[in-house]
Amino acid sequence: MRAVRLNRGLLKVVDLPAPRPGAGQLLVEVKRCGICGSDLHCRLHADELADSLDLCGYPRYLRSDQDVVLGHEIFGEVVDRGPWCKGTIRSGTPVVTVPLVRRGRQVDGVGLSASAPGGFAESVVVQESLTLPVPNGLPADLAALTEPMAVAWHAVNRGEVARRDVAIVLGCGPVGLAVVSVLKARGVGTVIASDYSAGRRALAMQCGADAVVDPSVESPWESAGDRHGFMTTMPDEYNAGIDAIEGLSRLPVPWWTAWRALESIGLTRPKRPVVFECVGVPGMLDGILAAAPLHARVVVAGVCMGPDTIRPSLAVNKELDLRFAIGYTPLEFRNTLHALADGTLNAAPLVTGRVGLTGVANAFTALADPEVHAKILVDPALETEEIVIK
Amino acid sequence: MRAVRLNRGLLKVVDLPAPRPGAGQLLVEVKRCGICGSDLHCRLHADELADSLDLCGYPRYLRSDQDVVLGHEIFGEVVDRGPWCKGTIRSGTPVVTVPLVRRGRQVDGVGLSASAPGGFAESVVVQESLTLPVPNGLPADLAALTEPMAVAWHAVNRGEVARRDVAIVLGCGPVGLAVVSVLKARGVGTVIASDYSAGRRALAMQCGADAVVDPSVESPWESAGDRHGFMTTMPDEYNAGIDAIEGLSRLPVPWWTAWRALESIGLTRPKRPVVFECVGVPGMLDGILAAAPLHARVVVAGVCMGPDTIRPSLAVNKELDLRFAIGYTPLEFRNTLHALADGTLNAAPLVTGRVGLTGVANAFTALADPEVHAKILVDPALETEEIVIK
Repeated sequence: MRAVRLNRGLLKVVDLPAPRPGAGQLLVEVKRCGICGSDLHCRLHADELADSLDLCGYPRYLRSDQDVVLGHEIFGEVVDRGPWCKGTIRSGTPVVTVPLVRRGRQVDGVGLSASAPGGFAESVVVQESLTLPVPNGLPADLAALTEPMAVAWHAVNRGEVARRDVAIVLGCGPVGLAVVSVLKARGVGTVIASDYSAGRRALAMQCGADAVVDPSVESPWESAGDRHGFMTTMPDEYNAGIDAIEGLSRLPVPWWTAWRALESIGLTRPKRPVVFECVGVPGMLDGILAAAPLHARVVVAGVCMGPDTIRPSLAVNKELDLRFAIGYTPLEFRNTLHALADGTLNAAPLVTGRVGLTGVANAFTALADPEVHAKILVDPALETEEIVIK
Repeated sequence: MRAVRLNRGLLKVVDLPAPRPGAGQLLVEVKRCGICGSDLHCRLHADELADSLDLCGYPRYLRSDQDVVLGHEIFGEVVDRGPWCKGTIRSGTPVVTVPLVRRGRQVDGVGLSASAPGGFAESVVVQESLTLPVPNGLPADLAALTEPMAVAWHAVNRGEVARRDVAIVLGCGPVGLAVVSVLKARGVGTVIASDYSAGRRALAMQCGADAVVDPSVESPWESAGDRHGFMTTMPDEYNAGIDAIEGLSRLPVPWWTAWRALESIGLTRPKRPVVFECVGVPGMLDGILAAAPLHARVVVAGVCMGPDTIRPSLAVNKELDLRFAIGYTPLEFRNTLHALADGTLNAAPLVTGRVGLTGVANAFTALADPEVHAKILVDPALETEEIVIK
């Protein structure tokens, strides 16, 4: 089969033996496979990523000197199965899959390890138990977004965002855009998205953002704070606490009884935004600590490689939360697929182009420019090296 | 009145005019006032702290070149009141207070600002609305612990610790010890405390820790992990997820229905510790990111001044939470006082000594050695420069 091989940063279309599904595995003919930011990153910095994952107990992440096939945002059709399958998914079924395969207790990330070739190929082996039929005739381009949208779905869950919350999304790359779409699909009232690129801001509006901000012109914090009344200084908070006690002390019950009642319905907590860090470059975290209002909850979905410097005293004095997020649970993956299929989750604006296997290297280059592209899908049936603009 | 004045790092007993309570304020005769770690810190690094608080909107934190009276862990008796008081707390009433005073909308930290002299003095001005009568004849030494115990009470709330959780407390200074006591008072089943000092470990046991660890001999993480089965590697988590799906797929309902049911009662989340960082020196956070098991929730109660370097990719891949904590709400302060007064909160082991005003400088020196002292209380009625060992 034809596949795109990565070795030492070079992407090349090669002929490989067709992969064979092992026990409990399916062979899937790839219809679409999205290019992820982590694909771009590991083309150039694979060893750095591998070192980091090694520290977390995963020793087989791809290395720069290995032959690997990237691609973990997979949509395709089942064409074969290995032994010991349940067989509930028939040949010809359109499927998406959580990109993990298991042999015994060895688990590998599909498209992220030399042990598990990915979806930038004509076919790919996936785990039957992690594979879901795509319902409702969901179009291929949208089905292929299940995996990246699940990442955003999970990040939003990590933020415990309520409908009345204000969400601030920093960075409108594919992760930030997906977060905007999920927040709106989940009914969050106010979503403010920030990006330096006009093209990305336009996509954020298409994904449903209520307002977009160019951080070189306007601070997303001031924009949000002015409109939504977040507390930004400690004296504000002290005064609010004293005001509350003095007000409650006029009631015929002890103030703490009233306070407890108000607390139980969330009324004593200061209004605070839920912030999504979707950039992942050094300095972002400290910038957030410095600029965020008191008590902000920050979901860190951007992956900053290498060490980063923060001022913890800012985070302490403002009582911030840093909730780091990665991946998703199988249930979140399934819920994302069904939200796409029933139309509640609007992910279409993310897809800006399609490309054949021979065009993957071009697509990697094109994705460096945020003005033109967000998500490019690889379609092995396309014969063009050029990117087909959506 | 006699008071301990701090100026340029020097503590000196001086005679000051007796303070006069303003509108809505009480004059309190100080019976006990605890020496806090932040007092030690701001004796030597006041300007650094002031700069940090200035960034959070509080411009009147004490500076090294100002004359200030420290002391914000106050227990005393009401002796006078200013105009516009409600008058519900009579003269002679033993009280504790949230250490803030307000004039108009200007709020200052008592004992933390040149604008609001603190409790290392014969008397101190406090805000009537933030002052609570001490019930049940609670002894002075314990009543004076209300403020620092409220800090721990709040930190435990920030951790959302459940009774079945395992808590790991890193650092057994007064904050760490207070966290251990609060965790046990709140019924948390397993509390593991870690400190290099044998004396501090002994105090942690007295506060109710279920196990103590000397981190130079044994890792608190391994100790906790071996006994409690936390996940430490990403493949462990992947395998657990696949095992769960394959198990649930044998049921006569779709696996996601069963998953959702299990999730609603918390059974799909991996077991994880709640970690309390109570040290506050550079490098602690990154050490936690490197050593913590997956999904650990870290409450950062130690205040690391100055910049600190972390590896965010570790936090992302392990999906850690960093929840920074400071202070408490008025309700938490009240609940802490009542838990002390009804005997459910055992704070007695924290107090290791008492000292008169003339001995405050000695006490600051003695607190540098963790083997001997944890919390020293200033008792203005004592005439000795020596520390009275409890």
